[in-house]
Amino acid sequence: MGLEPYIPGEQPKDKKYIKLNTNENPYPPSPKVLAAIKAAANDSLKLYPDPEGEELRSTIADYYGLKKEEVFVGNGSDEILAFAFMAFFDPGRPILFPDITYSFYPVYAKLCNLNYEQIALNPDFSLPVNQFFRENGGIIFPNPNAPTGRAVTLNEIEEILRYNGNSVVIIDEAYIDFGGTSSIRLISQYPNLLVVQTLSKSRSLAGLRVGYALGNENLIGALNTIKNSFNSYTLDRLALAGAKEAIKDEEYFQQIRKKIMATRKEVSDELLKLGFKVVPSQANFVFISHPIFPAQKIFQQLKERAVLVRYFKQSRIDNYLRVSIGSDEEMKIFLQRIKEIIQDKQGLPK
Amino acid sequence: MGLEPYIPGEQPKDKKYIKLNTNENPYPPSPKVLAAIKAAANDSLKLYPDPEGEELRSTIADYYGLKKEEVFVGNGSDEILAFAFMAFFDPGRPILFPDITYSFYPVYAKLCNLNYEQIALNPDFSLPVNQFFRENGGIIFPNPNAPTGRAVTLNEIEEILRYNGNSVVIIDEAYIDFGGTSSIRLISQYPNLLVVQTLSKSRSLAGLRVGYALGNENLIGALNTIKNSFNSYTLDRLALAGAKEAIKDEEYFQQIRKKIMATRKEVSDELLKLGFKVVPSQANFVFISHPIFPAQKIFQQLKERAVLVRYFKQSRIDNYLRVSIGSDEEMKIFLQRIKEIIQDKQGLPK
Repeated sequence: MGLEPYIPGEQPKDKKYIKLNTNENPYPPSPKVLAAIKAAANDSLKLYPDPEGEELRSTIADYYGLKKEEVFVGNGSDEILAFAFMAFFDPGRPILFPDITYSFYPVYAKLCNLNYEQIALNPDFSLPVNQFFRENGGIIFPNPNAPTGRAVTLNEIEEILRYNGNSVVIIDEAYIDFGGTSSIRLISQYPNLLVVQTLSKSRSLAGLRVGYALGNENLIGALNTIKNSFNSYTLDRLALAGAKEAIKDEEYFQQIRKKIMATRKEVSDELLKLGFKVVPSQANFVFISHPIFPAQKIFQQLKERAVLVRYFKQSRIDNYLRVSIGSDEEMKIFLQRIKEIIQDKQGLPK
Repeated sequence: MGLEPYIPGEQPKDKKYIKLNTNENPYPPSPKVLAAIKAAANDSLKLYPDPEGEELRSTIADYYGLKKEEVFVGNGSDEILAFAFMAFFDPGRPILFPDITYSFYPVYAKLCNLNYEQIALNPDFSLPVNQFFRENGGIIFPNPNAPTGRAVTLNEIEEILRYNGNSVVIIDEAYIDFGGTSSIRLISQYPNLLVVQTLSKSRSLAGLRVGYALGNENLIGALNTIKNSFNSYTLDRLALAGAKEAIKDEEYFQQIRKKIMATRKEVSDELLKLGFKVVPSQANFVFISHPIFPAQKIFQQLKERAVLVRYFKQSRIDNYLRVSIGSDEEMKIFLQRIKEIIQDKQGLPK
């Protein structure tokens, strides 16, 4: 098939790194989540899980003021995106997504034999909304975008939804809880809108594999048809139990997401002082570039100093680094290492 | 797409049933599995799991005397079968599977736009091996077969593998640990053989969602390409930890699988005494038919008496019931209820 699989951020095992390369949350999951998982680790694991995930879906629906029939749950938002590409996108017309975006989209498109056109972001990495006013077989973009961290306004999203009444528009909100405005409130007005979220980032559960999609009942029904033609039980009993508690522990959630946003502000200010360009971020990472020191070199030298960040060898962004927001302590070390590198003569460009 | 999703066995919540309808194991998972899951329910859930499942794959490889590169792990054998249909089967030629078999196969075929031909089983539900000697785009069947429980010999499988050197032949061994002979020993000779197994049945872990595929490195590589074009992390940290212990606790595994085979023998003998035809089973269920009492009627009356078995309204098997082997206590009640029904006048055919 000539597929080129997605390559996730590296998880090296050779030494202990400060991992700022896969946008994981530096804070642990809610203690209530861990307690619920331990309680679910019992003899009932011999039985299949609820294939419909009814309890978790009800919990998510209540949380957002939606109906259970407007909620789909899956094995991480990646699995849900794969199902959505299979369910909604039209092989006859090109699907649209930005040229700088989550690098899994072209992989899904190839898996599903879909043509795609990449919409070039503006030079400041903002989304050129009017470029989505053309014939297409479906639209997808993250809000905030990855790896830039830039968010789109709800007005802009509404313009895209209104123009594209005949296409499904997927807003990938993996990073929405760090400052963006969710499109969930638009679901009642736009039956062509699917919003996808994950527990991996803002709920500190990358290791549990739970995501969800919210949208019109017909869209959710179509996702269920694909899922039930693929794997009846995508979420195990432990993931279902833990995810429910994660959604319910609002206090803990607010606390850690606000903490990460505060750290992001502090780190961004420090980086600006060091001469970095910092793309305005509404995500749990910053996308940065230095006018003198090449990104790839900083990436390598950080790695030698046991700090992992993400570098994409890709046109337009090959002088940028994506740095996940870790704990205050991790970011302090990151900033120290950055200072060492740009003050060290070896860091000068060749 | 006109998909008709697979429908799993019912999981009613209206009252407490004796569940003999989804081939779950009546015995709990190994205590070591539960302990490992509880230990893994810690702060590290904030981090992504190992996308390659290296430790689990090594454990499985060691257990079967294979290389890690000959092992693929996934979210239940259902997910692995879906990936395998996508990876190996040729849309240009019909794929082959039995007419009476796991009802998910035609669903996968439709999802992947594959043509298929169903090979009619012999009247005794044995596999007509020579019917697989024809041009095809791939072959799949369970050994033992579901819902009949009949096993195929390794000689028969070798004949099919030898004739079909240009097709991938998938042996779905979900029920192999209850008396069949695994094809794993043929992997070194036949690069076109993929063996798929699951922890759901013989390891009592239907609720954990873990399966694995074993085969030539090239086949495993192709499965990885599909999986990494779909979802980088299909197994969460808890499933990876629990599954590893399940494979390692050989003593517990031997104990419960032998217990189920012993119960199957006892239940089969009792059913034969009651006049039932019992298809010889190498699985954790029996497939039964009564010469006088219609299966659908027995199914309904068992359900009213809080015993769930599986009935398939499908040509050739619509007078059969599939009964999972439960604990001795459950099977005692099942047999009591069966006796009540066939002795009760209401049970007489109309």
